[in-house]
Amino acid sequence: MKTYRIVLGYDGTDFRGWQRQPGDRTVQGVLEEALFRVTRKKVAVHGAGRTDAGVHALGQVAGFRGAFTLSDAVLLRALNAVLPEDVRVFRLEEAPAGFDARRSARSKLYRYRIAVTPQPDPLERRCVLHWPYPLNVAAMRRAAKMFVRTADFTAFSSNRDRSPVRTVTRSELRRSGGELVYTVESRGFLRYMVRTIVGTLLEVGRGRLRPEDVEDLFRTKDRPRAGATAAAKGLTLVRVDY
Amino acid sequence: MKTYRIVLGYDGTDFRGWQRQPGDRTVQGVLEEALFRVTRKKVAVHGAGRTDAGVHALGQVAGFRGAFTLSDAVLLRALNAVLPEDVRVFRLEEAPAGFDARRSARSKLYRYRIAVTPQPDPLERRCVLHWPYPLNVAAMRRAAKMFVRTADFTAFSSNRDRSPVRTVTRSELRRSGGELVYTVESRGFLRYMVRTIVGTLLEVGRGRLRPEDVEDLFRTKDRPRAGATAAAKGLTLVRVDY
Repeated sequence: MKTYRIVLGYDGTDFRGWQRQPGDRTVQGVLEEALFRVTRKKVAVHGAGRTDAGVHALGQVAGFRGAFTLSDAVLLRALNAVLPEDVRVFRLEEAPAGFDARRSARSKLYRYRIAVTPQPDPLERRCVLHWPYPLNVAAMRRAAKMFVRTADFTAFSSNRDRSPVRTVTRSELRRSGGELVYTVESRGFLRYMVRTIVGTLLEVGRGRLRPEDVEDLFRTKDRPRAGATAAAKGLTLVRVDY
Repeated sequence: MKTYRIVLGYDGTDFRGWQRQPGDRTVQGVLEEALFRVTRKKVAVHGAGRTDAGVHALGQVAGFRGAFTLSDAVLLRALNAVLPEDVRVFRLEEAPAGFDARRSARSKLYRYRIAVTPQPDPLERRCVLHWPYPLNVAAMRRAAKMFVRTADFTAFSSNRDRSPVRTVTRSELRRSGGELVYTVESRGFLRYMVRTIVGTLLEVGRGRLRPEDVEDLFRTKDRPRAGATAAAKGLTLVRVDY
């Protein structure tokens, strides 16, 4: 038995998220099916993060184990040959025996793109949130920085989690052409956490919350006062570091 | 009657090109239908360039004439409200009475994107040609420069044209991350001209033609010796200048 690690990207538009579910088209399901077609063996694939329906990835990492006759290079090519074109495996390599894509991860980096032009670029419409209304970007940038901390992120998650403390090591908003790009990094995220932070930043941008209110939200853990969960399509898992 | 000029973008993937054709989904057809829905008048829209099936645009320009009760700003919003999301009108303004989107154009700028990584980014797959084979990029760059001239471009077009002389004012290839980006500018192009130039550059990159052979192709007008017409999906009409 050999342990493998793959780095992959996908256009999340037509997937019901990462996690295998009977009857749904999911990234994990499509990968396991491709592995079965190539190796004729049932192989369980474990991802570093379970991206939600509609969320994209450029650098998702996953692991699996198996004893195959194919070399790594041939296995990589064969997988891409049978995978649908909205999933691509960029790298495949042997990993140490104890490799666990989720638990071994040191940090994950997500990016959220917001097109602030009156009309969005039609070629980018699947991976950018379109927001044509006025935004106070300076206030949003100040608020973004306030998420860099170790804290209980309950106010910024859509599920009650038994261990809601997370450490965010990077959280910044920058302008890039007609877009606002939010970048956030952490060892682990609560469910919907990035999208709820983005929703909160948009509330700050609209003047409905002040940057200082983020502090209150951390203290009161008042989920309803934070912003709505921003649309999945703006979010991409860019990188997982080990 | 008022003359209008619009600047628009589209994802060409699901269009049979620009030009209206009965039974086909075309950009011109979809625009005219949207104008009819908004104004209840039959309006003919004329584009600066008739992009082929699968070709994209970020800055296509088109003109039309009509006497409408709606202000320009309302007409723009109404059009975008009824248009499908793979077409967006970025600007709408009054044009001088003699405005002819095609004839008045001083130059058009096209871009062709080639992903040279082993696997393409799945989020970009609709607007980039994937070329995972070795390429001599230095030779391609030299060849690209040789297209800047006033000449008979018959060897680089797929139709016999009665007036095949064109003036190319810019033709360059640059690297951008994992992509080769070819940019070409001219007042007007022959049919399939940009894609045939790109096909020829790929032949140079593969070593099947030398940069110097471009000179021969101009002299002999030998279409079959030039490269194949590169796939439509890599091509975008970026800008039209007046």
